[in-house]
Amino acid sequence: MHIGMIGLGRMGGNMAERLRRGGHTVVGYDRDPDISDVGSLRELVERLPAPRAVWVMVPAGEPTRQTIHSLGEILEAGDVIIDGGNAHYVDDQRHGEELAAKGIGFVDCGVSGGVWGLDNGYALMVGGEEEHVKRLMPIFETLKPEGEYGFVHAGPVGAGHFVKMVHNGIEYGMMQAFGEGYELIKASGLVTNVTDTFRSWKEGTVIRSWLLDLMVRALEADPDLHGIRGYAQDSGEGRWTVQAAVDHAVPLPVITAALYARFASRQEESEAMRVVAALRNQFGGHATEATKGADSPGADVTPPAP
Amino acid sequence: MHIGMIGLGRMGGNMAERLRRGGHTVVGYDRDPDISDVGSLRELVERLPAPRAVWVMVPAGEPTRQTIHSLGEILEAGDVIIDGGNAHYVDDQRHGEELAAKGIGFVDCGVSGGVWGLDNGYALMVGGEEEHVKRLMPIFETLKPEGEYGFVHAGPVGAGHFVKMVHNGIEYGMMQAFGEGYELIKASGLVTNVTDTFRSWKEGTVIRSWLLDLMVRALEADPDLHGIRGYAQDSGEGRWTVQAAVDHAVPLPVITAALYARFASRQEESEAMRVVAALRNQFGGHATEATKGADSPGADVTPPAP
Amino acid sequence: MHIGMIGLGRMGGNMAERLRRGGHTVVGYDRDPDISDVGSLRELVERLPAPRAVWVMVPAGEPTRQTIHSLGEILEAGDVIIDGGNAHYVDDQRHGEELAAKGIGFVDCGVSGGVWGLDNGYALMVGGEEEHVKRLMPIFETLKPEGEYGFVHAGPVGAGHFVKMVHNGIEYGMMQAFGEGYELIKASGLVTNVTDTFRSWKEGTVIRSWLLDLMVRALEADPDLHGIRGYAQDSGEGRWTVQAAVDHAVPLPVITAALYARFASRQEESEAMRVVAALRNQFGGHATEATKGADSPGADVTPPAP
Amino acid sequence: MHIGMIGLGRMGGNMAERLRRGGHTVVGYDRDPDISDVGSLRELVERLPAPRAVWVMVPAGEPTRQTIHSLGEILEAGDVIIDGGNAHYVDDQRHGEELAAKGIGFVDCGVSGGVWGLDNGYALMVGGEEEHVKRLMPIFETLKPEGEYGFVHAGPVGAGHFVKMVHNGIEYGMMQAFGEGYELIKASGLVTNVTDTFRSWKEGTVIRSWLLDLMVRALEADPDLHGIRGYAQDSGEGRWTVQAAVDHAVPLPVITAALYARFASRQEESEAMRVVAALRNQFGGHATEATKGADSPGADVTPPAP
Repeated sequence: MHIGMIGLGRMGGNMAERLRRGGHTVVGYDRDPDISDVGSLRELVERLPAPRAVWVMVPAGEPTRQTIHSLGEILEAGDVIIDGGNAHYVDDQRHGEELAAKGIGFVDCGVSGGVWGLDNGYALMVGGEEEHVKRLMPIFETLKPEGEYGFVHAGPVGAGHFVKMVHNGIEYGMMQAFGEGYELIKASGLVTNVTDTFRSWKEGTVIRSWLLDLMVRALEADPDLHGIRGYAQDSGEGRWTVQAAVDHAVPLPVITAALYARFASRQEESEAMRVVAALRNQFGGHATEATKGADSPGADVTPPAP
Repeated sequence: MHIGMIGLGRMGGNMAERLRRGGHTVVGYDRDPDISDVGSLRELVERLPAPRAVWVMVPAGEPTRQTIHSLGEILEAGDVIIDGGNAHYVDDQRHGEELAAKGIGFVDCGVSGGVWGLDNGYALMVGGEEEHVKRLMPIFETLKPEGEYGFVHAGPVGAGHFVKMVHNGIEYGMMQAFGEGYELIKASGLVTNVTDTFRSWKEGTVIRSWLLDLMVRALEADPDLHGIRGYAQDSGEGRWTVQAAVDHAVPLPVITAALYARFASRQEESEAMRVVAALRNQFGGHATEATKGADSPGADVTPPAP
Repeated sequence: MHIGMIGLGRMGGNMAERLRRGGHTVVGYDRDPDISDVGSLRELVERLPAPRAVWVMVPAGEPTRQTIHSLGEILEAGDVIIDGGNAHYVDDQRHGEELAAKGIGFVDCGVSGGVWGLDNGYALMVGGEEEHVKRLMPIFETLKPEGEYGFVHAGPVGAGHFVKMVHNGIEYGMMQAFGEGYELIKASGLVTNVTDTFRSWKEGTVIRSWLLDLMVRALEADPDLHGIRGYAQDSGEGRWTVQAAVDHAVPLPVITAALYARFASRQEESEAMRVVAALRNQFGGHATEATKGADSPGADVTPPAP
Repeated sequence: MHIGMIGLGRMGGNMAERLRRGGHTVVGYDRDPDISDVGSLRELVERLPAPRAVWVMVPAGEPTRQTIHSLGEILEAGDVIIDGGNAHYVDDQRHGEELAAKGIGFVDCGVSGGVWGLDNGYALMVGGEEEHVKRLMPIFETLKPEGEYGFVHAGPVGAGHFVKMVHNGIEYGMMQAFGEGYELIKASGLVTNVTDTFRSWKEGTVIRSWLLDLMVRALEADPDLHGIRGYAQDSGEGRWTVQAAVDHAVPLPVITAALYARFASRQEESEAMRVVAALRNQFGGHATEATKGADSPGADVTPPAP
């Protein structure tokens, strides 16, 4: 079928290529005129037969919001927009409503697949109305992996990015679980063959997983991970997962702990711990008694009222 | 080679069978005379050629301790005992020292494989001295799965059960991460195809894993898990993992949160929450004012000093 | 000075009364005409000399937003609005900006004090511009407790409700800490005099506090808290605290754990735990083997690939 | 009454002094002959009239165990030993049983009071049999603060140190709650008067407490706590609290989080986070693709199977 692709960076460009290989006709637009098929969004829209399908693959947040807003101005009733970026599901819901008022369809699509997606396909998690998703199935069929998995129509608008967000939250918890297990093994001083241990778990165990495979690869390349700094960024999805949990009054202790561990890993020094340390110093009373350990008997003592 | 197997229950019996199929000569002992090859430990020892190898496969704790103690009385220098149960690594270390004083070797072996182990092999995590592990390799080779993974000599005595314990700790964290993701998806009310979502993750995602496969199987059998009570037992390994972390001053937020979630799931009512509720009631002051919501402005008020 | 008070419920009514006792002239408005001094916001505004001060004491969220919006339509440049409710600090910031565009001042004020506030004064946490806060000091001086504490100008608009929010977050953590200690003491079965223990801590200990005093009162009234259900509501402030932490990448493990404990306490059954239980069942393999405990050796076994 | 005091360091020496001021006859023993009243434990025992009372005030662990063992060899049936150190309650229970076999009483006593205890008294938490505690009441009455609080007979042997341990656990949670609140306030950038804010909370709030008083003192001395390193030691009590919770299957999320925050604060670099970072690097695939951000769309991609 015909589709417009907005954003021809690594992800959008590869997806356009995979679609073309699959027999679809793709009109691409990018801010960079060297790689763009058209000079403007308007031209892209004009080159597509109605009812149109336009896939937006630009950074989440403001760029996506602006692109979708602009498209909403020039598309017609019956057309459909797909947001394949990393948008917050709340943004999706707003976009869906705004476009619905104009008769334009909206589908959100969480995408996994990275640089291998061109050849191996992209895992797709889709939210939107049945009719829009159905119409786009030729596109999804081409983009997804060949096997029987890797595609889901999770629910109405927003559901696609929502489950992609939760996927990432689960990922946070799993990664941290592996990290903690590794740290305990190292700290024990009892295990002489750490890499062998993780490698052996690839068969016959409960925790065998793609993350375990990656971990073994990392340990094989750098057995003590000495080349790796012990801090980690977090993406929006981890934060959104926790915020969604708080909104829905769902306790998420593991996923939240994993997020907080990343926060903490990026701190030079913990302000909270300054307070704890300051309070422990206060137990000792006046400065001249600061040598008194707070752990000795009676250290948790109340000073006389002034 | 020749080996004694003590404990011929489902695990020990199957392991004996797999060893026999592999060409080893197994003398089995069980308290149940109907399935025992010999009438006593002493007879078992007498039937084995020196240097002997005796595999103990009885419940962890007192039964294992007593069996190993008894064996220590009747085995000879040069013999070796393998504890294949679920012992605490600290027990292993004590057993290792006690037996070493008599010249008897000790090897601890964490075992995975359950009812499928007979045919598919058991994942083995071994702790002990190089010479003992080497001597027992024909046994391990027969018991382990056929692939290149599923066996590790993790370190000295105790290391086998230690890494099996950590494996289970990681497992706790991963299971809880999946549970939390599922709960958030359900609570959102946004996702209409929950089982499809999890199934789609089996390909092309970061969290694909054997646990995900199991989860999909569970959801396919019972899409809302209505047949499952929302509480979970915990095994010794989870608790030992946390206690080892505390001993080594290693922060284990995710694994501990997963353990605590199991504890909490088994409580009819939380005593801690009674206190929180009682304190909130106290904010409202005297009984006659108990209707005052603690969340309204000024609810967190200090009453007059008596 | 002259002040308008909008919302004459328990909090607003008592504050109006305390202000009158302190010599101020208060014009009160309430939806209930029986207790309202004026028939409309417009009339209230007309009865106040310029530059006016109007204190809004209505429920947070939509009611507060609507009231402030309406006031913004009828007040004049130079007037100032105080929001004394439980608003989210982000709302404050928006209100501040909207009103500033019209030359109207805005001050947010977190209030503690409840039913005792009338006689004992209200703890006030204020955000706003120096000039507005200064002008309102006669009001704050009358409302606050008599001692040297209980009032702070914390920062610009939003800072008042922000620190009140954090106060409540800290409160969550402290309450949960007491609850956990109590639960452990009860579970130990070792402590025969529980109430006496908590009471003894009122002197000479690190944890002496108003919350401890309340806890002793609660235990004296109901030694096993049998009359208290073990679940607790949470107010917006606890959730906002966690969300602010996530926004600022600040790890808040204790306050978040306290919030999640409240969430969990209100669940009949944990969906997350259904998953954990379902996964444990899966370990046992086929239904006919469901009796196999997951904790026994080898329970964490991988079944054969189909 | 007559009492022996073993260990005349800061705590033991001051307690001996307070007891003498209270009219008791104290025979002190210390390894340091310059401050010891007697040359040996045997001489101390000989100088006390039967039935004897001997207070042990030496470091917890091995020194306490050895001292109690030695006393057990030379005391007589009817005598009683008090352990006023920071022993683990499990040690108490063993000591109690061993001494009971010889007819010697044992009382454990958690002590708060530090350097101010000499003048202000020590908070005492006592475990032991009614008859022993009763006989020692003149001693406890002299040592405890003058008010109506600060002493409890919590239960049988072990209960005194158990509740002292739990007190410290609660303390951990409270301190961390204050720390987290402070950190969030600082990170917000919204609060210009931080010290004023905490100080204002000393009246009319839910969180007013001795710890808040200490925190205000610390902030007054060093408003940004720049002179304080953000890390904190932990004492045995915090760890024992968590381990007791795990033993009793009690979820302790807040207290455990506070303990783990201290563990983490002392780490140069988190090994767990090295793993998380290494896994994130692996998402990017081969080294040549390491520039690919893991947060961009599709970053969580599975590489092709080898």
